[in-house]
Amino acid sequence: MRDVAVIGVGMNRWGELWNVAIRDLLAESVLKALDDAGIDSVEAMYIGCMTSGLFTDQEHLGAIGPDYSGICPVPGTRVESACASGGAAFRAAYMHVASGTADIVMAAGVEKMTDVDGGGATFALATAADQEYEVYNGITFPGLYAMMANHHMNKYGTTRDQLAQVSVKNHANGYNNELAQFRMKVTLDQVKNSVMVADPMTLLDCSPITDGSAAVILCSLDKAKEITRKRVVKVVGSGHASDTIQLAQRDDLSYLKSTELAAKQALDMAGKKITDIDFAEVHDCFSIAEIMVIEALGIAKVGKGGPATMDGVTAIDGMFPVNPSGGLKSKGHPVGATGVAQIVELTEQIRGDLDKNRQLKKANIGLAQNMGGSGASSVVHILEGV
Amino acid sequence: MRDVAVIGVGMNRWGELWNVAIRDLLAESVLKALDDAGIDSVEAMYIGCMTSGLFTDQEHLGAIGPDYSGICPVPGTRVESACASGGAAFRAAYMHVASGTADIVMAAGVEKMTDVDGGGATFALATAADQEYEVYNGITFPGLYAMMANHHMNKYGTTRDQLAQVSVKNHANGYNNELAQFRMKVTLDQVKNSVMVADPMTLLDCSPITDGSAAVILCSLDKAKEITRKRVVKVVGSGHASDTIQLAQRDDLSYLKSTELAAKQALDMAGKKITDIDFAEVHDCFSIAEIMVIEALGIAKVGKGGPATMDGVTAIDGMFPVNPSGGLKSKGHPVGATGVAQIVELTEQIRGDLDKNRQLKKANIGLAQNMGGSGASSVVHILEGV
Repeated sequence: MRDVAVIGVGMNRWGELWNVAIRDLLAESVLKALDDAGIDSVEAMYIGCMTSGLFTDQEHLGAIGPDYSGICPVPGTRVESACASGGAAFRAAYMHVASGTADIVMAAGVEKMTDVDGGGATFALATAADQEYEVYNGITFPGLYAMMANHHMNKYGTTRDQLAQVSVKNHANGYNNELAQFRMKVTLDQVKNSVMVADPMTLLDCSPITDGSAAVILCSLDKAKEITRKRVVKVVGSGHASDTIQLAQRDDLSYLKSTELAAKQALDMAGKKITDIDFAEVHDCFSIAEIMVIEALGIAKVGKGGPATMDGVTAIDGMFPVNPSGGLKSKGHPVGATGVAQIVELTEQIRGDLDKNRQLKKANIGLAQNMGGSGASSVVHILEGV
Repeated sequence: MRDVAVIGVGMNRWGELWNVAIRDLLAESVLKALDDAGIDSVEAMYIGCMTSGLFTDQEHLGAIGPDYSGICPVPGTRVESACASGGAAFRAAYMHVASGTADIVMAAGVEKMTDVDGGGATFALATAADQEYEVYNGITFPGLYAMMANHHMNKYGTTRDQLAQVSVKNHANGYNNELAQFRMKVTLDQVKNSVMVADPMTLLDCSPITDGSAAVILCSLDKAKEITRKRVVKVVGSGHASDTIQLAQRDDLSYLKSTELAAKQALDMAGKKITDIDFAEVHDCFSIAEIMVIEALGIAKVGKGGPATMDGVTAIDGMFPVNPSGGLKSKGHPVGATGVAQIVELTEQIRGDLDKNRQLKKANIGLAQNMGGSGASSVVHILEGV
């Protein structure tokens, strides 16, 4: 297996982008990543996207991507794993370079979510859950995560304030991220008093509907050292695991087994322990999700994710910063792009490229955790500056 | 790059399967492939599917696949490239094994197309074309291929009978395939006199709407020789290329540049010429498609695909048998499964596993060509018995 590095990253300003079609949204990040790497093209392209069919009536982004980025006949392949589509696209691109079939491969991600009316986005997102046993019986994603939150609160005594603190922290981080969708600080009271979505979670516990894209360029390590003038960021670990798609079939409603397993694979491959990692970008689609994720990763003990968050362990100046980008909560969550944007953040932090107000002091090794459904798919990557 | 082989294949009987859900459809082929390989599980799974979201309201097949095959926490990833989704899934699985990350990886494909009413399937399939510039202006896939057919007829003198002969040949082959959807022989007159779909193409020039799945298991060559008691079938070539998604933007409306390029990659990798290949499974979504494909592959000269077909070059007892399985036309075209089913046919022909009435006499090296949209994506693989 060859060593692989990230040599270019790009991302657009996320938000409700009414004037931008999905093809242009995708091309913007693709061209920025090529520019960042200082190259004109790649040998292959993987595009993470959850459901452009339901959101925009357009499948076959594997053709749209190269075509509208001006790099035909480069082959393009769309990869989907619900909200983990971006992480899965990065992993597929990693395999491609690691196999030796190509030296330079792009992983991009995109979702255009605002071109459907009313319940259209909720319906499209619900296709990540089990239609026949969950969705047809009336549940939506906020409902699934609300059940997980209630279970966690009952089992471990996790409090409403601890959930809300995830949003407070991530909005504080996203306030300094120029590409984030919602650059506003929020207080515990604002989170708790916002509109109820699914008890106990209010609007500010939930990640938003977002139009956005992101792209990164992977390269064999040897060639990376020739091409890039920036710090070489090596992919040292990659993991991917599944769990039952139905929440009801799990042993424990509020433990993310797939995240634990994917992280173990990635850490084993890197020859590292979680305490060796400097910071993480994780999948805070809902506030409870970040609490469960930091427990599954071992950043907090099981059942102690809430207190750890409240104590500032995961704050930007804490022992283990989590979601310095603002996370899904503040940066936005264009589902197929999210996992790729995590790699963008890891790369820029490790390079030390960011503005002073959000550059971490210690950012040599970063971990990205991207998750699909209510945790049925988890993808974990570890990047290290070399 | 490690050598990779196919060690197990499985496929269900294709058709209009009203009583079977997409999860069961997928699991049937997955379990058959595991059984054929004589193993219980795999290390990862790729699932080719074009648009389960639009056909069945269910995305996230990467979770459904392992879960309903009983092999959680094996990671699953869905791969989409319109009608080339199956070929792209096989290529992703190939990269995974070639990278050395895993020894045994499955590529499956599935599409459940009959659970939508009336125009639902036509709408879903049209998302493989350019929505904004082609579909919103009224074109459907039969219309796109009809324009390619008219162009080919005007430019090269290809005749209506030559188009129809593709269907006659493939139905004659599929008549002997127990898993084919339409096991009936047809005559030139029956093809020409069937209901008009898009001039000059009638119903019997078009591949059908199908529910179906297929699965194959890839393994590192070294390990394959330990595991399988059957003939080892090595993946000797893999290629993938793109073209503009819009037909209107191509230099030549009736030449499949992406197929030529993907085939060149695969042949170069295998160190072979097209004349070294014994037989091929190709993407005959419409009768004109097979004529254009055999020209792009070099089986016939450009413009001579029609006469070559009429002369029996591509017949099952011809110089270069094409679509011995019956092709998309007779076997059926559950879009995400098609490319994987081509690998099933190649493997079984190379092993010599098939019934006497459809086993090719010379089948040591086979080529599979799978195509998305009106040729915007092409994936080509070459398999050889060792």
